[in-house]
Amino acid sequence: MLAKRLQNLHPYVPGEQPKDRVYIKLNANENPYPPHESVAQAVKAALDSGIKKMGLYPDPDSNELRSAIAEMLNKTGGVLSNKNASIPFSVTPEMIFCGNGSDEVLSFVFYTFFDSDRPLVLPEHTYSFYPVYSGYYGIPMNKIPLKENWELDTDRMLSEAEKTDSCIIFANPNAPTGIALSKDKVCAMLRAAPKDKVFVVDEAYCDFAEESCIPLLAEFKNLVIVRTFSKSLSFAGQRLGFVVANPELVNALFTVKNSFNHFPVDFITQTAGIASCKAYSYYAENAVKVVNERDSLTAFLRERGWFVIDSKTNFVFAKKDGKSGEEIYQEVKKAGILIRHFSTPGIEDFVRITIGTKEQMDSLKEVLSTI
Amino acid sequence: MLAKRLQNLHPYVPGEQPKDRVYIKLNANENPYPPHESVAQAVKAALDSGIKKMGLYPDPDSNELRSAIAEMLNKTGGVLSNKNASIPFSVTPEMIFCGNGSDEVLSFVFYTFFDSDRPLVLPEHTYSFYPVYSGYYGIPMNKIPLKENWELDTDRMLSEAEKTDSCIIFANPNAPTGIALSKDKVCAMLRAAPKDKVFVVDEAYCDFAEESCIPLLAEFKNLVIVRTFSKSLSFAGQRLGFVVANPELVNALFTVKNSFNHFPVDFITQTAGIASCKAYSYYAENAVKVVNERDSLTAFLRERGWFVIDSKTNFVFAKKDGKSGEEIYQEVKKAGILIRHFSTPGIEDFVRITIGTKEQMDSLKEVLSTI
Repeated sequence: MLAKRLQNLHPYVPGEQPKDRVYIKLNANENPYPPHESVAQAVKAALDSGIKKMGLYPDPDSNELRSAIAEMLNKTGGVLSNKNASIPFSVTPEMIFCGNGSDEVLSFVFYTFFDSDRPLVLPEHTYSFYPVYSGYYGIPMNKIPLKENWELDTDRMLSEAEKTDSCIIFANPNAPTGIALSKDKVCAMLRAAPKDKVFVVDEAYCDFAEESCIPLLAEFKNLVIVRTFSKSLSFAGQRLGFVVANPELVNALFTVKNSFNHFPVDFITQTAGIASCKAYSYYAENAVKVVNERDSLTAFLRERGWFVIDSKTNFVFAKKDGKSGEEIYQEVKKAGILIRHFSTPGIEDFVRITIGTKEQMDSLKEVLSTI
Repeated sequence: MLAKRLQNLHPYVPGEQPKDRVYIKLNANENPYPPHESVAQAVKAALDSGIKKMGLYPDPDSNELRSAIAEMLNKTGGVLSNKNASIPFSVTPEMIFCGNGSDEVLSFVFYTFFDSDRPLVLPEHTYSFYPVYSGYYGIPMNKIPLKENWELDTDRMLSEAEKTDSCIIFANPNAPTGIALSKDKVCAMLRAAPKDKVFVVDEAYCDFAEESCIPLLAEFKNLVIVRTFSKSLSFAGQRLGFVVANPELVNALFTVKNSFNHFPVDFITQTAGIASCKAYSYYAENAVKVVNERDSLTAFLRERGWFVIDSKTNFVFAKKDGKSGEEIYQEVKKAGILIRHFSTPGIEDFVRITIGTKEQMDSLKEVLSTI
């Protein structure tokens, strides 16, 4: 009784949420710090003064939230962990599109910009939901292997995109490697990429890196940047993601949203999202803590003979000779800590470890010392 | 720079939300009564005890919520306004699928069950989002005109579905007419409809009617029932809808959901949704009040020469000779009350009036007396 298009589906598998015991959860790139207290207060105040609003359809366009996001980006320069980040123009609300998590936003991006008559160019190893969306919408893919040093093979991505006049998507910093491509290198890619095709940079982890590509929007009208509240803004449970792009592309995303679900962002999420944007300095402090713990874990593992890729995210991707990723994952799980292991060919030796609090990292280091 | 598939999109247009003045809002079929106080309390308690949960991914499958919905259906018989409603078996959580509003749930239903190589059979006038989904996924439609008395032409729907071995969808009670098809008549349709194709009954307004088709799930494995929290459960702002169907079809919906957005229902919505289910007797009282006001408005209008279709929903669909729907809508709006008018050919003489509180209905009646 199922439609034939279901044959193309290969659902995404997120980090496990086992309930057999209490684990230290370092497997889903969640933020170890709770949302700011002003977020809970804003929700409570909204319930006290406007519980009736829960019964009325929310603002379908999340306009107040779009303004709050634009203001946060302008104030932070688009990178919470880097005080020196800046954007040389003012991001306007018209450049923002919000959705129910960056997963939904990405789904709309795939539908809106990627045609089914030519292959989408993407790295072989990147956010594993991209191939799922391709299956959902019937978009062919041209997966380009990473270079031996795990960086994007930008030359080959560009030559393939040129050959088929194709769109490009990748995460920057990339997942699960954690490597960031500099803004200058992305700029060089944009100069060489097809001008009439959208070029998507998924900046889910950008707040833990040094640079955002948002400044490049001034020059490139085909650039679409995807961001999420889930990681740096401690909001994974509440589901909020957004696009920053030129207003024409944002309008197309609205058309698509209004053809799928007119009201994807609910009343409380809009309220809590606005409060989160205003509390950006708290989240910036947390992002710096995460960056410090990440660099500490990287050094710790390297001292003990692990191979660790340079990460600009809130996780590290690492392996140790003589142990499979699966074995490391299992040993760590036995000690009450969940990390992530992928059985994807090419990266099966690695584990991906989300950065937690100092206390969580100390516990993890103790376990890893014995491996 | 847009994908070709956007040419098929004709976005849904919901009831307006103008901000030029404070209106009595009777244009979006929202519930005039606020959510129960226990719903706000449950959210506040969750924030107090578990604000950290807002930063962690929610239960992707909404399992506790599915149990709460099943329990509510079993306790209420599936119709809040009818104390005598009953379901002759126990609805289990495995029969429930939740999503971000019934709009998202319907979108998944279209993707999961309706093929692109044969026309979907639906009434010409029904929930106007169905043709939007058909455009989104490239599903051809076979729209069957309503009978002269505005009822579904079930004979013709069945003969067309049999001709092309097609799926069927309609809202019951139907929108915007408000007419309900009895459970016995739906049962007769199911007996005659293709057995290997899914048959969807959208019960968005069923809590204001007399019967649900949920009891028919015992006999028909191809029946899919869609419900929403937006209307009878005063939850439009919070976005929650669900399917009741046999577990195999529910599993297919999970596969589709996990290929689009793994976590469509956020932490607070799950919490508030569970609390809403538990407060069902409050919402049942409200549904009865709405039914009484609906029947009062119907009588009022008929006494004044209006043509009013028998409604089993929280709205009435009515027209008055000598006035276009647009004119009535404008006159009522001038008086500070929003109702809905559709420019769709065939129903352009009608207005759709959402049932509000007694006070709101008294204000409306005063305005309508002058028309």
